[in-house]
Amino acid sequence: MSDSGLPLKGERGGMDKLEQVYQYIDSNQTKFVEELCTLIAQPSVSARDEGVNDCAHLLESMLSGMGFRVATFPTHGHPAIVAEMDGPKDSPTVLIYGHYDVQPPEPLEMWKSPPFTPTIREGRIYGRGAGDNKGQFYAQIAAISSITAVSGGLPVNVKVLLEGDEEQGSPYLADFLREHREQLKADLAYTSDAPIHSSGRPLVIFGVRGLLCIDLNLRGPNRDLHSGNYGGPVPNPAWGLVHLLASMKDAEGNVLVEGFYDDVVPPTLAEREVLKRIPFDPQEVQKSFEISRFEGPEHLSYYEKLMFRPTLNICGLSSGYSGGGVKTILPSTALAKLDIRLVVNQDPDRVFECVKRHLLSLCPDLEVKKIAGVLPSKTAIDHRYAQCAVDAVARVWGEPPVVFPTLGGTLPDYVFTRILGVPSILVPYANPEENNHSPNENISLDCFNKGIKVCATFLYNFASTGK
Amino acid sequence: MSDSGLPLKGERGGMDKLEQVYQYIDSNQTKFVEELCTLIAQPSVSARDEGVNDCAHLLESMLSGMGFRVATFPTHGHPAIVAEMDGPKDSPTVLIYGHYDVQPPEPLEMWKSPPFTPTIREGRIYGRGAGDNKGQFYAQIAAISSITAVSGGLPVNVKVLLEGDEEQGSPYLADFLREHREQLKADLAYTSDAPIHSSGRPLVIFGVRGLLCIDLNLRGPNRDLHSGNYGGPVPNPAWGLVHLLASMKDAEGNVLVEGFYDDVVPPTLAEREVLKRIPFDPQEVQKSFEISRFEGPEHLSYYEKLMFRPTLNICGLSSGYSGGGVKTILPSTALAKLDIRLVVNQDPDRVFECVKRHLLSLCPDLEVKKIAGVLPSKTAIDHRYAQCAVDAVARVWGEPPVVFPTLGGTLPDYVFTRILGVPSILVPYANPEENNHSPNENISLDCFNKGIKVCATFLYNFASTGK
Repeated sequence: MSDSGLPLKGERGGMDKLEQVYQYIDSNQTKFVEELCTLIAQPSVSARDEGVNDCAHLLESMLSGMGFRVATFPTHGHPAIVAEMDGPKDSPTVLIYGHYDVQPPEPLEMWKSPPFTPTIREGRIYGRGAGDNKGQFYAQIAAISSITAVSGGLPVNVKVLLEGDEEQGSPYLADFLREHREQLKADLAYTSDAPIHSSGRPLVIFGVRGLLCIDLNLRGPNRDLHSGNYGGPVPNPAWGLVHLLASMKDAEGNVLVEGFYDDVVPPTLAEREVLKRIPFDPQEVQKSFEISRFEGPEHLSYYEKLMFRPTLNICGLSSGYSGGGVKTILPSTALAKLDIRLVVNQDPDRVFECVKRHLLSLCPDLEVKKIAGVLPSKTAIDHRYAQCAVDAVARVWGEPPVVFPTLGGTLPDYVFTRILGVPSILVPYANPEENNHSPNENISLDCFNKGIKVCATFLYNFASTGK
Repeated sequence: MSDSGLPLKGERGGMDKLEQVYQYIDSNQTKFVEELCTLIAQPSVSARDEGVNDCAHLLESMLSGMGFRVATFPTHGHPAIVAEMDGPKDSPTVLIYGHYDVQPPEPLEMWKSPPFTPTIREGRIYGRGAGDNKGQFYAQIAAISSITAVSGGLPVNVKVLLEGDEEQGSPYLADFLREHREQLKADLAYTSDAPIHSSGRPLVIFGVRGLLCIDLNLRGPNRDLHSGNYGGPVPNPAWGLVHLLASMKDAEGNVLVEGFYDDVVPPTLAEREVLKRIPFDPQEVQKSFEISRFEGPEHLSYYEKLMFRPTLNICGLSSGYSGGGVKTILPSTALAKLDIRLVVNQDPDRVFECVKRHLLSLCPDLEVKKIAGVLPSKTAIDHRYAQCAVDAVARVWGEPPVVFPTLGGTLPDYVFTRILGVPSILVPYANPEENNHSPNENISLDCFNKGIKVCATFLYNFASTGK
């Protein structure tokens, strides 16, 4: 591989193959945007099974039309799609992963255009899934289709795996990989999800935090009661839940559950060095979210908290009446939804047992339900395939990427590193203000275009490293 | 007044006037039930201004048709209705109070028949407002109409005052009484609301707890954020709210807000005696609500907690996503709705200042909003009018009523005792399982019938005490 990561210099009278692919990508931008909009317009909300199977059918026919060998597999959730296209014999194999399910779009009233009516405004495509993850995995497909259009074939073997339950914590993906280990055999896993760095610089990521989701349900009286006629002697489950939650975390953000931090591995020296090089402007971040301070222990940096420290997050809280005016009831139930981001070497099952033991020791009546669990994952930042991705990003963006040892968010990356046993590299394509999981989710046209080019470049770089 | 409270013995060949009125009430039961159903079928949800003005119009025409002089007054909320009918010159005047607005009917899926489609099942009328308060104030009107039908006139002067904002904490009633003090002048205020005693015995009440409603709103980031990409360093307002709430009350139910209990007056010796005579079966109460314990300090009895101790109740709690499945967000806001039941001599404004000071000292960014405030109220249990009500209930029910020095719930009773300066007596008519403020609200046909008779009896008893 040359220093620039450019493998095929000099063909066609001085213009290399990759430059031709870039030209093809630019002149077909409108077509790629239209195809992405078709995908976004198909709702696929896995949380409530809205349109997910229809979205799988749509993808199956799109991919077949592009010349992939496509197989769709039923799972206990939504279908897994595997699309394959071969490169030269003895070339390495990349497994590209994406997910076609999306987050619920609520609150609807906050969207400037409807979530499933993709709309282009000020250089961005708006719609649920535009960035997370339809716009990003579709960029990979567009790259593959551009290379085959220009070169008549691929420089490496490509397997594309698309799942439909990622926003539910990918509960069926691990089993699917265990059952299809042979078919999915590869040398490297490559995923594009999440936004690039908030500074606007591109990003390459070598691991993810895991996830554990828990629902807590505390029952009080068997129906909502008049808070005057019964308030005082009859216990209120909202108060019970408040006291239970307060027992789990102190005001400084330290989790008080015994055993919670037991398996946490601190950053290596190399990772500490990388952490220091991540650009960070605290004022800018606070201004953009309109917050006046950060959470958690003062002695940890922003990125250490985000990458090497587990969270205990309340993502939902609900009891009684929360509309306008006054409804004076003593509620019959109180519900909290928790999500816990795990770091290497925490295990969702072990952490769940710690949380459950803590809560049930205080309140044996509490219903504690595990909703999802995903292991954390890590690939060494000096792996030999690492440079293929870093160089591809640098060439397309014209500047070196920021390197994240860990993503704050969760992807089922462990299925590649722990089940398939291959390294896994994450190259986000979406713009920082992607608003993933929020209203007005979007991907910028520029980021979408660069994403297609990064994937194409990466495939050529990967080919040049050999098996 | 005779020992039995019966003033008109011996007319019409041995049958007294009151027996004739009872006969009239029994033979017109179907008509009274139909008229009440017409009232229930008209929604009047003051919390969201649904149908309340239409309900006022309906009442105005009903009352005019019965021979009342009716005046409807605009307020800053919904109209106040005053209906008057004169008795003999120099007879005393009773001011009967009721409210025609109702609680929101949610959760709708818990109703066995729709809340605004009154339905008779197993001897009860089901519908929002059946007990609280349409069925109860309508019993008073039916009593008046029965007496005039039988006797051609009333034994006392009657003024009926109906308001449309009681479920909002009666924010406009005090001003209305101050402005119409002359027109509403009376010797006694008489109110029927709330259920009879849970033992099934009738009830007479001499005071109420007050009410203070407060909304807390804590803002975090300016939009919901991905809990993975930002969880850890970015503060979560749901956690902030949990810690603030936990600082307000301990797990034993003691409020920790400085000054909260300052003005609380303990029960008098006479009230302690009355408290002891209230029937109470802890097993029965726990079984009926499917709860395993009571809340609050062990050394206080159930009724002392309910009548002489203020509460701090969470009636609503809301943050983030509380639907099915997983939505891993760091919510942008967290909301709590509190209702505080006050006892004599607490003042809602003073208590609000204590709560606000406590919360803002911990979290200056918190939004603390007073939504409603009603003073507590008390009438001496040995007032000379007390026996009129106690005897009327005893005669109709065939057993002496339970006497409550204070109702756990709130009615704007202070406007009578403190603004008009008259004693005020409360005689609940609804059955114990009325489900006021809950799904499947109802009034039993028997309780409705007895309520009409109690009111008729009371009016004759009251006449016999003179001015």
